Amino acid sequence: MAETKCVALVHEEFGKPEEVLRLQEVDLAPLQQGEVLIRMEAAAIHPSDLGMVGGSYGHLRELPAVGGREGVGTVVEVGSGVPGSWEGKRVRLPEGPGVWRSMQIARAEQLSEVPAEVPADQAALSAVNPTTAIRLLSDFADLQEGDWVVQNAGNSAVGVAVIQLAKARGIKTASLVRREELMKPLQEQGADLVVIDDRSAAEAIREARGDARMPLGLNSIGGSSVLNLAQSVSDVGTIVTFGGMTGEKIRFPTRHLIFNDIRFCGFWMDKWNQKNGARAQQDLLNEVYREILNGSLKTPVEKVYPLASYKEALEHNGSGRFGKVLFGNV
Amino acid sequence: MAETKCVALVHEEFGKPEEVLRLQEVDLAPLQQGEVLIRMEAAAIHPSDLGMVGGSYGHLRELPAVGGREGVGTVVEVGSGVPGSWEGKRVRLPEGPGVWRSMQIARAEQLSEVPAEVPADQAALSAVNPTTAIRLLSDFADLQEGDWVVQNAGNSAVGVAVIQLAKARGIKTASLVRREELMKPLQEQGADLVVIDDRSAAEAIREARGDARMPLGLNSIGGSSVLNLAQSVSDVGTIVTFGGMTGEKIRFPTRHLIFNDIRFCGFWMDKWNQKNGARAQQDLLNEVYREILNGSLKTPVEKVYPLASYKEALEHNGSGRFGKVLFGNV
Repeated sequence: MAETKCVALVHEEFGKPEEVLRLQEVDLAPLQQGEVLIRMEAAAIHPSDLGMVGGSYGHLRELPAVGGREGVGTVVEVGSGVPGSWEGKRVRLPEGPGVWRSMQIARAEQLSEVPAEVPADQAALSAVNPTTAIRLLSDFADLQEGDWVVQNAGNSAVGVAVIQLAKARGIKTASLVRREELMKPLQEQGADLVVIDDRSAAEAIREARGDARMPLGLNSIGGSSVLNLAQSVSDVGTIVTFGGMTGEKIRFPTRHLIFNDIRFCGFWMDKWNQKNGARAQQDLLNEVYREILNGSLKTPVEKVYPLASYKEALEHNGSGRFGKVLFGNV
Repeated sequence: MAETKCVALVHEEFGKPEEVLRLQEVDLAPLQQGEVLIRMEAAAIHPSDLGMVGGSYGHLRELPAVGGREGVGTVVEVGSGVPGSWEGKRVRLPEGPGVWRSMQIARAEQLSEVPAEVPADQAALSAVNPTTAIRLLSDFADLQEGDWVVQNAGNSAVGVAVIQLAKARGIKTASLVRREELMKPLQEQGADLVVIDDRSAAEAIREARGDARMPLGLNSIGGSSVLNLAQSVSDVGTIVTFGGMTGEKIRFPTRHLIFNDIRFCGFWMDKWNQKNGARAQQDLLNEVYREILNGSLKTPVEKVYPLASYKEALEHNGSGRFGKVLFGNV
């Protein structure tokens, strides 16, 4: 095997990613039968990745661990017993060993091929956020053309995917954001209504939707933002929580549950994957690839950093950016 | 008609019940064809009655209004066209004109007969709380023998009915209360576990239930009490909110929705009645009467007051009582 070492972002304890992550040289074992060597092309930085390094996520890795869970790469070498046709193919990086690394060894039967026409950065941003957006729009309400969906954190990667996918399906979106400068970029993504997440938001949303149904609210922020969703959706509407960016508790008056019959539930893509299995995951990914290829879905990308610039990348990621920050071969 | 006047607790504005209610003499119109005259035997004082007088309830009466929504009485006179066999029968008081009154005129076709063996006070406490308890135990989780249910405000009338009905079905109950002196009375009602609603409550409940399922939590208090329920129920459990006694907002961390897949929804008996219609309401009432008659259900009664002592009754009702306070012919 040509390569015997690679670099990886390793942490030996849970803590602030910028403090506990280190770029380390890692040995690559010789390729065994049935294995392939993959060179990373693009790897996402997701909030949940930071929660996993930080120790607050719903499941954690054994330490020491390499960070990151989603990325794609090119098969650069195949071990014995693996068809040579895999060489040069773009594949998803298995998440188990962590994807913030320049090279990764994987078993051939684990490989999930990415259509060559799907750009590497978009492919590396497919399996966490757009999949979540598809499930949120599909599994919690019977959405019809002309219906509305309301969401907070409209500028998150899921939020943007919701805007794009809803538009392609004839569903209107009302998006709450916390900064004025996010309004225009979201409108450019196809948002029907973007409002500042303050006390007047619910009234503005109810006015915009008029008599149209709004059976679904999407929450990825805790705190009082949920109240704006609860006051916006139609009676018997469902509010799905799939993230808690601020760490604040959810707060809302009991009257929305009792008198308006609003339901609250949660969604966790990891659990969906676990419950539905590999075949369903691949079907869902294929749906995302189709939406990318037909132009319905394009996750905005802010900047791609080499692994060596991880401190800069994390800082940029934590700033008031709009698109996603990735690691890549740049 | 022998009687031409009755007394009633009337309010001309929404406000604190003890301030806006007045005992007034009210004229009774002569009985028309198809009407009956009912003498009130027992009428409940429910928290929702006070919310309706106070103006905070989900629907309100036109003013001036007579308070109260649930009670029973005896038919003392029938108008022309009404079978004389109704005379002397115990019937439910139609809630429309308010039940906190000594006499009420009703149309015969509205009448719902109460089995003579059901005591008047229990009958007057049937259609709001025990019906709610039955629906809560039946409609939101597939409860099996040996499963647990957790509830806050375990000493409320619904809470006591939940304890009694669950016991009859082989389901165990964990009840949160806010005062030490409520623990013994609830244990006497058949509660399996009663704990003070503080920060150590969830741990005590998890310890008591061990590996048994706890698929249902019942919330009739807002505020942080919900957190104890969320931390007690099994994953994929449902927490049903049917009251908000403290008026505080519901607060809980998003992680319970996302990682534990807990669902929150509401229940409102009024809406259930409206949606399911008169036949289903009567079936549900008959179920309550059967549970009363077979000894599974008995709502504790604290004291019965005449309408004229309404100030004392309301004060007693608002104090640290255990059983229900009613109006009656005493």
